[in-house]
Amino acid sequence: MPLTNRQWKLAARPKGLITPDVLQLGESVMPPLQEGQALAQVKYLSIDPAMRVWMANISQYMPPVAIGEVMRAFGLAEIVESRNPDFRKGDKITGLTGLQEYFVTDGKESRPFLKLPSIPFLSDTNFLSLFGINGLTAYFGMMDIAKPQAGETLLVSAAAGATGSIAGQIGKIHGARVVGIAGRDEKCRWIKDDLGFDAAINYKHADWKQQLAAATPKGIDMNFENVGGEIMYAVLDRMNVRGRVALCGLISGYTKEDPALASFAQVLIKRLRVEGFIVIDHVSRFMEAGKQLGMWKMMGKLRDQQTLVKGLEKAPEAINMLFRGDNIGKLIVEV
Amino acid sequence: MPLTNRQWKLAARPKGLITPDVLQLGESVMPPLQEGQALAQVKYLSIDPAMRVWMANISQYMPPVAIGEVMRAFGLAEIVESRNPDFRKGDKITGLTGLQEYFVTDGKESRPFLKLPSIPFLSDTNFLSLFGINGLTAYFGMMDIAKPQAGETLLVSAAAGATGSIAGQIGKIHGARVVGIAGRDEKCRWIKDDLGFDAAINYKHADWKQQLAAATPKGIDMNFENVGGEIMYAVLDRMNVRGRVALCGLISGYTKEDPALASFAQVLIKRLRVEGFIVIDHVSRFMEAGKQLGMWKMMGKLRDQQTLVKGLEKAPEAINMLFRGDNIGKLIVEV
Repeated sequence: MPLTNRQWKLAARPKGLITPDVLQLGESVMPPLQEGQALAQVKYLSIDPAMRVWMANISQYMPPVAIGEVMRAFGLAEIVESRNPDFRKGDKITGLTGLQEYFVTDGKESRPFLKLPSIPFLSDTNFLSLFGINGLTAYFGMMDIAKPQAGETLLVSAAAGATGSIAGQIGKIHGARVVGIAGRDEKCRWIKDDLGFDAAINYKHADWKQQLAAATPKGIDMNFENVGGEIMYAVLDRMNVRGRVALCGLISGYTKEDPALASFAQVLIKRLRVEGFIVIDHVSRFMEAGKQLGMWKMMGKLRDQQTLVKGLEKAPEAINMLFRGDNIGKLIVEV
Repeated sequence: MPLTNRQWKLAARPKGLITPDVLQLGESVMPPLQEGQALAQVKYLSIDPAMRVWMANISQYMPPVAIGEVMRAFGLAEIVESRNPDFRKGDKITGLTGLQEYFVTDGKESRPFLKLPSIPFLSDTNFLSLFGINGLTAYFGMMDIAKPQAGETLLVSAAAGATGSIAGQIGKIHGARVVGIAGRDEKCRWIKDDLGFDAAINYKHADWKQQLAAATPKGIDMNFENVGGEIMYAVLDRMNVRGRVALCGLISGYTKEDPALASFAQVLIKRLRVEGFIVIDHVSRFMEAGKQLGMWKMMGKLRDQQTLVKGLEKAPEAINMLFRGDNIGKLIVEV
């Protein structure tokens, strides 16, 4: 008897939240298995903010889901029938299953499915959270970018979410002071009482920025950023010199057309590293720099042009020249 | 005979450009030199966009100039009289001289003056440009953050300015393709014809974004950013995955109150590192991460909570739950 598959397909690109016209539930009949194929039944689907990004027709790290295509989603599935020696009935696999009940795999996908190991103290759903994209994302963002140090302060936004809650706990494991921002008191209680965060702030309370200042008396050294927008701006205001921002998500912007967020979205999607710097931090290396610059100049590889303005009385006007772009090269007042 | 000193003092905080009420030219009589002091006569003053920042009453890397204080400026001065054995008449020194004709030094300033070496092929003004904050800034931003590689594309904004013109040349020295953005055709000609940039774009031409795309056929790997705002956003749009942005200046924002720039100003002033990341870049390290996460979970240091929604038909609603913040921990659809 042919098997019926229910699938959510992308029918229209969303504006704001997912309205009924965006995803369409359809049925299709699964074709008989070919040699080399296995049939998998989806058990659990991972629901992630990234899905909203995948629906949008913007440049991103994976092609957007096409109109008419089964909606992309991570999931966990069980092999129910196999004509491929690599898969046995009962095997559990995880990967991009799509938002559907059944799919066929030949084991040759460009993003292959991973077979779940059987580990006594783990449930299947752990593989969609702690060992799925959330736990892994928290791990890499914390270990590679935030680099938690004992005694430093970590701020996590969307701290009661799947990724933020793990990121904050990784901060605690490393001895950091961890402060979380969430949008409900119940969430704040959970991250503080159950997960051991040092403080939790509900950004829907009017005085949340004062609470943030009080909870971060030594400023913020690391920000694991999931939200963007107003929340991120308030966090940046509290950051210490040479702080690190692991830009993981901008959920506040995914359902809006916010031009101010667009530049940070580029940083996220393209995994850019944006670093501010100020020359006076490097006084101890001025000799190194001077020698190298002098060498390049002597070799004729560096040219250095000046625009001279004569007279101390012209100094304020000279500053304005910079902003009007009147100078070429270095603008100098000859006193 | 007592010496008269002319000084520009900050009289009011600027809004926009420097209007006549902002800086006030006054005269004062220099007191007689004390034992241990030297009198320096300012010869050249470095005019820098940072001066506009120092005038504003915002948190920054140095305290803002106080109202009534001599305006801060880098400069080059000559010792004209000395009662300090470390300074001899005729010595040339560079540092924060202030916007004035004379000043007294005891050699004990927190940001000490540097004595100029006498190097035949260098003129004094080179020490305010190539060997002053501009050359040094270009050096550290390029070498530490942009890290130019042969064959990569570097984009420099304000490319005909004192810092940008050096940054671009450092890119050429390392074999990068270097594209500059400036605001006048004359500047574009200078950086292209005289400095050897591969392309130069005048952002005041209506089609400058198309020109930018044409000049960066392989995208942009490094951005030495001096301008911010619309120019930076257009550059970010062209950046390649894992590109580096050395955030040196945001001159487009210094004379405006632009909330969209404020967050990038924080990144600059606090020398933050903001890094976007995506978990799928790290597939080869999933085992490493999984082992560590599993270890932490086994040790009871990581908790992992799920919110389960039953039924494939609930999937679109589950996605919206994320954006409304309805879930605690991981949101999973049980199919």
